[in-house]
Amino acid sequence: MNVDGKQVRPIWLGEDGVTVKVIDQRQLPHCFVVADLITVDQVIEAIQEMFVRGAPLIGVTGAYGVMLAAIAAQTTADPLKTIQAECDRIRAARPTAVNLAWGVDRVFQRVLAAGSDAERIEAARSEAAAIAELEAENCRLIGEHGARLIQAISHGKRGDTVNILTHCNAGWLACIEYGTATAPIYEAHHRGIDVHVWVDETRPLNQGARLTAWEMGKHGVPHTVITDNAGGHLMQHGRVDMVIVGTDRSTHTGDVANKIGTYLKALAARDNGIPFYVALPSSTFDWAMTDGVKEIPIEERNPDEVRYIQGLAGGKLVKVLVPPEASPAADFAFDVTPARLVTGFITERGICGASRTEIHQLFPEHD
Amino acid sequence: MNVDGKQVRPIWLGEDGVTVKVIDQRQLPHCFVVADLITVDQVIEAIQEMFVRGAPLIGVTGAYGVMLAAIAAQTTADPLKTIQAECDRIRAARPTAVNLAWGVDRVFQRVLAAGSDAERIEAARSEAAAIAELEAENCRLIGEHGARLIQAISHGKRGDTVNILTHCNAGWLACIEYGTATAPIYEAHHRGIDVHVWVDETRPLNQGARLTAWEMGKHGVPHTVITDNAGGHLMQHGRVDMVIVGTDRSTHTGDVANKIGTYLKALAARDNGIPFYVALPSSTFDWAMTDGVKEIPIEERNPDEVRYIQGLAGGKLVKVLVPPEASPAADFAFDVTPARLVTGFITERGICGASRTEIHQLFPEHD
Repeated sequence: MNVDGKQVRPIWLGEDGVTVKVIDQRQLPHCFVVADLITVDQVIEAIQEMFVRGAPLIGVTGAYGVMLAAIAAQTTADPLKTIQAECDRIRAARPTAVNLAWGVDRVFQRVLAAGSDAERIEAARSEAAAIAELEAENCRLIGEHGARLIQAISHGKRGDTVNILTHCNAGWLACIEYGTATAPIYEAHHRGIDVHVWVDETRPLNQGARLTAWEMGKHGVPHTVITDNAGGHLMQHGRVDMVIVGTDRSTHTGDVANKIGTYLKALAARDNGIPFYVALPSSTFDWAMTDGVKEIPIEERNPDEVRYIQGLAGGKLVKVLVPPEASPAADFAFDVTPARLVTGFITERGICGASRTEIHQLFPEHD
Repeated sequence: MNVDGKQVRPIWLGEDGVTVKVIDQRQLPHCFVVADLITVDQVIEAIQEMFVRGAPLIGVTGAYGVMLAAIAAQTTADPLKTIQAECDRIRAARPTAVNLAWGVDRVFQRVLAAGSDAERIEAARSEAAAIAELEAENCRLIGEHGARLIQAISHGKRGDTVNILTHCNAGWLACIEYGTATAPIYEAHHRGIDVHVWVDETRPLNQGARLTAWEMGKHGVPHTVITDNAGGHLMQHGRVDMVIVGTDRSTHTGDVANKIGTYLKALAARDNGIPFYVALPSSTFDWAMTDGVKEIPIEERNPDEVRYIQGLAGGKLVKVLVPPEASPAADFAFDVTPARLVTGFITERGICGASRTEIHQLFPEHD
């Protein structure tokens, strides 16, 4: 996407063909820093420490990690076994997003079928690139399908501003291009529809305030940063027409794991009769789980992510401690919104209701 | 209450009888600073800039503001008229909490009945002090009534930890002693009931992380700071037994204005069958309004409160900018939880349901 007139993706392969380059998203919006990943350990660190985040991007990063594993495995006694063990490590880097295992497995299958070290590396490289292109194209299609929903609301309001609330960052930074939740917004904006985005700041890591606001600003989409607490009040007063969020894993029965706090917005949307949509590529569906609240593993992260907040002071990135030093904190990264609160899914194939039947109608190959 | 072995209140009258002393709560928990208020302008600044906050404390501060107005009015041509104009200014300092107008009016009525400058000052001083004592006693009674609810849950769990979630700070810092929402918690803790408090950090001003966590820590009550986003997830997984919050204004029909985000917690409590209680002295009831969502004025504050976060870095209080400099933000301070989501009110006279009938049964003098 567009950053100061330059086309940028959150991940790409360096000109040497072996260096994986990622935007270090921990430093946005105040510093734009590119990190080089050349080892599996660096890939795992980048995923765990959230240089990269967002289900599709984690999937692509994991996919390139398998390529780095294949490069390193050349010098080992049993390269395939080495690569397999490294895949296990990458897959375990974060538990909630299903795309990570999906991306790793998909590349590993290609590696398995290759005959030599060089072929394994090339297979991994081309498959990781293919996954990146697939995710970009999926997001483009999500944008087209979702924009129709926004257009319909705009018609209903006779062209008045359509106010869309989103939580966390399911933008191009979380994906490859366009984003998931943001793709319909960008597409509607391109079509000249008057859209305005309420950006939940999204504590603890403020991906909304830091990343979604940055994306929107760079792209010229009108937006306002609000606290995560504010959405219910805005909905009560008719100031939200639609909620669109992304997801890290959704069951094929319609339960949605997404950034912590999503469930609260879904409850408020339901209480106020506001449509609540989830945008995702089909790689984010979990075709095995049926009860999201009970089954999807919810990552607990370092409580210091809650206690310390990073921002700009005196031209530098500074972390400040908010609660008393002695007070314990807990950091739950995701929650699960039950299918009953979801109006529909916006996928690369179109829009469907949040039920097993409707999801499988759109993706019958998973029956 | 107890701070490092010393009895402290958030507001008191200096030994000179004319200086109003308040804890500057903006600097807690990292710095304990006492501010002197000797003019009405300083009182208004302390209320608007939130040196003091919380419905009962704002009421007491406003009450002492009338005393300072009476002192300054001695030198004016028409002291009563001057005091009345100053009362109008104090009343307008913040719009949502009903206690402010209530406290100011109550003191002004006493001033009106006095005959001389000296009598007016003395009437204001004694009435402000009486309001402070009344609020302290009300909070003590709220604690006694509310602790019975906690005791019942504890019995039901056979003595297992009772997990209570609270939002913002409705502790002694917001009141005079005990707090409103925290009074039942302190009382249960004193009775030896095993309680643990989930402290919502409460963006944008982090009164939960900064003030409630500080109070709990100083008093030895087990607690954990969480993001405002986390409560729904905890409730889904059986980790919250009860929600208790305070309120800045509740209609006599049961609608509850409280810190922004309260409504979202009430929705989650309802969705998970968890009791949601509101603790308040009767001074916080608005006996005129019937539709809280439509009628209670919701303050919009400076968006920089959302954009900048204050905390400790390098031993100093520092404010860091989180979103991009260019991104607009909005700062809604309160929301309204409809009566249908409220299990009950904990008042100084006992507990009642959130309906006009039950509230008036407990306070028949307002029929």
